[in-house]
This record gives sequence, C-alpha cells and structure tokens, in this order.
Amino acid sequence: MIKAEIITIGDEILYGQITDTNTQWISAELDKIGIRTVRKSSVGDSEEAILEIFEESSKRADLVIVTGGLGPTKDDITKKTFCKYFNSELAVHQEALADLTEFFRKRGREVTGLNVGQAELPTNATFIRNTMGTAAGMWFEQNGIVYISMPGVPFEMKGMMTLTLLPKLQEYFKTPVIFHKVIRTIGIGESFLAEIIEPWEDALPENIKLAYLPSMGNVKLRLTGFGEDLATIEADVEEQFQKVLPTIQEFVYGFGNDEIEEVLGKILTEKKQTVSVAESCTGGYLAHQFTKVSGSSAYFMGGIVSYDNAVKINQLGVNAETLNTFGAVSEETIVEMAQNVRQLLGTTYGLATSGIAGPNGGTPEKPVGTVWIAIATENETITRKLTLGGFREQNIHMTTINILNLLRKLCL
Amino acid sequence: MIKAEIITIGDEILYGQITDTNTQWISAELDKIGIRTVRKSSVGDSEEAILEIFEESSKRADLVIVTGGLGPTKDDITKKTFCKYFNSELAVHQEALADLTEFFRKRGREVTGLNVGQAELPTNATFIRNTMGTAAGMWFEQNGIVYISMPGVPFEMKGMMTLTLLPKLQEYFKTPVIFHKVIRTIGIGESFLAEIIEPWEDALPENIKLAYLPSMGNVKLRLTGFGEDLATIEADVEEQFQKVLPTIQEFVYGFGNDEIEEVLGKILTEKKQTVSVAESCTGGYLAHQFTKVSGSSAYFMGGIVSYDNAVKINQLGVNAETLNTFGAVSEETIVEMAQNVRQLLGTTYGLATSGIAGPNGGTPEKPVGTVWIAIATENETITRKLTLGGFREQNIHMTTINILNLLRKLCL
Repeated sequence: MIKAEIITIGDEILYGQITDTNTQWISAELDKIGIRTVRKSSVGDSEEAILEIFEESSKRADLVIVTGGLGPTKDDITKKTFCKYFNSELAVHQEALADLTEFFRKRGREVTGLNVGQAELPTNATFIRNTMGTAAGMWFEQNGIVYISMPGVPFEMKGMMTLTLLPKLQEYFKTPVIFHKVIRTIGIGESFLAEIIEPWEDALPENIKLAYLPSMGNVKLRLTGFGEDLATIEADVEEQFQKVLPTIQEFVYGFGNDEIEEVLGKILTEKKQTVSVAESCTGGYLAHQFTKVSGSSAYFMGGIVSYDNAVKINQLGVNAETLNTFGAVSEETIVEMAQNVRQLLGTTYGLATSGIAGPNGGTPEKPVGTVWIAIATENETITRKLTLGGFREQNIHMTTINILNLLRKLCL
Repeated sequence: MIKAEIITIGDEILYGQITDTNTQWISAELDKIGIRTVRKSSVGDSEEAILEIFEESSKRADLVIVTGGLGPTKDDITKKTFCKYFNSELAVHQEALADLTEFFRKRGREVTGLNVGQAELPTNATFIRNTMGTAAGMWFEQNGIVYISMPGVPFEMKGMMTLTLLPKLQEYFKTPVIFHKVIRTIGIGESFLAEIIEPWEDALPENIKLAYLPSMGNVKLRLTGFGEDLATIEADVEEQFQKVLPTIQEFVYGFGNDEIEEVLGKILTEKKQTVSVAESCTGGYLAHQFTKVSGSSAYFMGGIVSYDNAVKINQLGVNAETLNTFGAVSEETIVEMAQNVRQLLGTTYGLATSGIAGPNGGTPEKPVGTVWIAIATENETITRKLTLGGFREQNIHMTTINILNLLRKLCL
C-alpha cells in the first residue's frame, strides 16, 4: 500500500490559534483512493523545522503532502525551503504568471510588488493550477518520492486536490481500483450496530473493508472494495450491501453524503408536503436545520418559537389549563403545540418540541434531558418521550435529530 | 522557553475518520502558560510508530504530551508501549483501582473483565486522576523530559489538564508568571483592526505580546504579559489595555471568554428587558443563538420564523400590500416584521431579519447576500442593510452576528 505523510506548516496552527481542518480532509480523501496516511505533522514557519520534517518523512513515505506557507509575505517560506531541500532555485513560471495576471485582471487589478513572487516556483516543480486563488500548487519527484505543496486555504486546497491531484495520484501510483458505498444510520449507537452486523462483518471477503464513522446522533458505515476491475468490485460491494441492509433497515436514513435534513427535504418536496414547527426546548434550532438547506422554502413554511408560556398560549393557542395542570414539558402540552401550529400555518405536518435542555430546570420527576416531541398530521398526532441527559447543546441537537428522523419515517 | 510536542495516537484520526480537536486545545492552553509547542504529530495504533515518535520527540522537546490509545480493548496499546519505551511493566495501581471501583459503583456496576486492565499502569508512572471517565492519566519523567499520557475523549482530557496538569506543569517547569487579557471585537476585519492599532502594537514593551485570534465575524486580541511577579505584570498589561481600548472601543463587545449572545443576555437580564424575533432568512438561527444560552428564558420570550410570506401575513400581521409592492427583502417589510413581533409578544425589543441567503434567489437588484435587519423599540425602529455575499451558512451567521451586535449597542 502506498504510504503518505501530511505536513502542515504554520505557527498559527502550532500555537492553537486556528483549527486545521485540511489534514483530516486530505487523509480521508487519500483513504478513499487506497493511499494510507502513516503520519500527520504540524511544524512552525521555521526553515530548520521544515527541512527536518522533509528529511524524516522522505524516509517513511512514498508521498509527502505539504499545506501552508505559500502566501506572499516574508513569513511564508515553504517555496524557499523546497528550493534548499531540492537544491533548486526560484524562477517565474510562465503558466503561473498567466494565471495570476488573469486572476487580478478579473478583479480590475494588476500584478504588482509582493504578488509577482506568487508566480515564482522552484525550477524542478510541476505547476498545479489553483482555480480559486493566487498561490500555485506544486508537484515534485525525487528518489521515487512524490512531494506535493498546496496553499493552506481550505477551499483552494480542496479545489486543487479534487480537480488535479487526486486523479494524478491514482494514475501515478497505480493505486488499486476502489469503490465505496456509505450507509448512514440514525438512532442506534456504534456498539449496538456492531453487535447486529457482527456475523456479516466477520464473513466479509478479503477485498472488502468496513469502517464505522460515528458522529453525534448518527453512525456511518463505509464499505470499501479493492481490486483491479471496477465493475467486479462494484458488484462485490453491492452484494454485501444487499446482505447487510435488511438487518439494519430501520436505522438507515440515507447513503453517501446525505444529511438527514436533506433526505427529509427531498421526500417532502417530492410528495409536495409542508412542515411547520412549534419549538420550546430546541428554541429555533429545529427550524434552522430545515432552513439551512437551500430550497427549503418549498416545504418549510415557518414556525413559532414558544419559549415563554405566554407565547405558547397567545401565539400557539395552547390551553392555559393544560399548561397549569401538566406543565410545559408534558404529552398534553406537546400535542396541543403540534396540532395548533399545523392548523395555524396550514401545513401537512406540525412538529413540536418541549423539554428540559439543562443545565438548570430539572426536577426529580422531570430531570434534565426529559423531552417530549410530537408530530401532528391530518389524522393523528404521534408523540415520543426522550430521556437524553447530556449537556444543553447535545440535548438540543439530539431532540432535533430524533424528531427529524421520526418525521422521515412517518413520510415514508 | 520550554518546548512541547503533542502526539495523538489512533488509526481513526490518521485515516481522517474523526476530527482531532484535542491538539489545538492543548497547544492553546500550553501557549497561555508560556510553553511553546514545536511540533504536533498523529501516528497510528502501531507499537513501532509510537516508539519511533517517542524517540524523535524526546530529542527535540522538554515535554511530550500524548493523547489516545488508553481504552480497554486490544487495539489500545499506549500503556504497553510506554512500558517498552521506559523498560517498565504494568501493575495494578491502587488509587486507580479505587477510582475505577467507585466510578462503576456509582453506576450500579462492578469492575470486571476487560475493565480491570484500566487500573493497571506502568510502574514508573505517576497517577493522574480522571474525574470524568475510567482511563487514568499518567506522568513520567526520564532524562529530564516529562511525558504525559491522557485519554483521547475530549472532556476527560480537558478535565485532567485543567484540574491537575496545567498547574503541575507551571510548577515543574517554573514557567514565567503569565497574565492574559483578551479583548473581543466584532464588526471589523483583522487587517483593518491591525491598521488602527499598529502604532500601539509597535510600541509594546518586550514582555507583552499581542496575538490576533480571528473567527467568522469577530476577532479576539490577546495581550500576554510575561515576568516574575504577577502584580507587576497585571499592572503592565492593564496599562497597555487602557491605552488601546479607546482607539477600538466601538468594536469591543466583551472580554475573556464572553460570547456576544452571553454578553447581550447579561445586559438584558440586568435591565430586565425582553426580546422577541421575527426571522426570515436566518430561519430560526437567531432564536437559537439566544436560546443556546442557559438562563435565556429570563429575557428571550420567543419568535416567529416567517419563512413563507403567508406566515409573514397571518402570524406576523405584515401588510400583504407591503410585500407585494416592496418584496420580502425590503426596509418596508422588515420594519413591519420587527414592530409587529414586538407588539404581539409584548417585549422591549422586536428583532427582524429578511434577506437572500443564497445560493439561489438572487436578482441583479438584490443579489445573494442582500439582507435587511431591524430592531423595534417603544419609540423607534432602527434598520440596517447588509451586503454579505458569502455562502448560505456564512450569510445566515453574519446576519445574526450583526443584529445581535446592533441590539447590544442599542441596549447600552
């Protein structure tokens, strides 16, 4: 297997001033094309530190990927250090200069001063186009090892990798043909999922690997097939996929890059159905999950954030007596909230949440994390009591995930 | 200056399956106590790779901090590898066992099977209590170098660092006494801020350093004073702070760990004032910023997410003619939204947002990123037109930051 090392250059990352999201993204992309990351490192803007890590990495890896330090200012020393490492020198690269000139021309400016340096590359570099910015990417080869240099700006780096470098790496290293299939589950923990699919997982053929990718509220399963012929691998992965799917069907909400709010949005759009929300404990977060999806205005009409009981009574029309007798966090209240918001906004579904997000407000009968959710339709109102008990942020998120998934199931 | 290296152990991080937030947090905390991180590395769950990085780091650093690989399963090999590295062996540590027993007892369980191993530590380790979980932390010393091992679970690691390790490190390394003051600004970019304070920054005394910590919509300025006597340093920092503050006062919304929504919450609580929101383009995100703060029910009454125009008319009482004549994204509409939500919910302030979040829906007159915000009070309604033009998520976030800051200024 081809081994890669990823190096991030920059004092700001080293001292914890900014978050490095590049390294994770790059290693995940390499993993998908069958290149194994064996080490990740961050070093500062120091020639000595950069040369040292180049030396070390070249002893362990077939591929060394470097991000950062390509800006026009004097603390960006990656290119000069590459020159020293390769015993090369900087010279204006005509393609890089043409791109740079065009980039500035489009913005009504000319290439001057510091920016001219952006078109200078080490003479042994292969130019890699940056369609999103001014710092060129570079590809070097020495003693059978490939070195790649990219800017640290995430969308510039991602553009270069996707358009040019990932295909080039696959071709250069003749990495095995690979096929992925991602199954997205919700409402089941990683270990419970692992228990259910254990017999299937243990029987997977050699050329198919399974990865668990958990995040808050959901777990992704990634099946990866390796081989020499794409059609065969695809068929192999598909076969395993069809075997495991029935055993976990009730937890599967989507595939690939699907997010729950997008999956739900597609179903609602297709069925020409609409949604309104009445939120107490989620306080606007549920509406935000709907509206962060572009195009959501087709099915999301709006909502009422009834944080205060007066808003539950006046805007939502919840019966004051219901609130007095059963409290805001009760099945009785949540049912009225869901039914009323549905009727007021004239939607297919009315969703409601009410609970104790914490850290304060819990009682022995209704501890922090006690949440009621409800969905009202024309014919019925479904309710669920959740017992979450996490931190405030988690309780709000998990309540939202739960009601989105409940609605998804109801729609189908 | 004391030099540190931070090592993360785990295949999941190496292959990009999970995000490593620990390394950034640790390096930022070390930075605060005057310990400089010189390298960050991630290696897999392999004895060979771990031993190699231990060897390398010990040549460069005074302090080696390791996270991960402390779980009870067989792929967690950090402790065994430390034994090999130090030529030590595992033995049950009585304090660790007592903590573990107590941890399980509280949950109505007994320490059995795999979990007993959690109380075994290398015999040369100093036990570091984990108040949040079952994996003990460890402190080793060899040839003048300190090695620290912590679990990879973020809140367990943070608990250990904050309660025990940071104070212990300050004492052990006799790091200079340090005093920090963080100024939080909003509504100004990093480079503009730098221009304003350049004369002051250039004149800073040797023992005071300035760091810019930018994130979406705001920039933090951190002043750090180094020295031997806390009172003197505090006075030095305070003096510089008082010099710079008047030059940037209009952009300063808080200090230290203050978030804009918390600062605002405190002001509103103090003044016994209340808020309601009418959201179009922010779609619930503004309400969420209020309600994610614990205790927000004291001042946040609720809101209406009027995504569809029918909701603007029926629930908010916006004049249909206003919408027809000027459109939803207009000063005329936003004023009605703000005034009406304030009146309907009976609050001190009524906030409203309406704009084109994108990526679709833009026109030549109102391109993506065109946003109107308004705040209605008893006596007046203030409006602002924003021209944002970023991605959907950014536009939603920046609209929210802008209106929160506008309200903060209005409250003062």
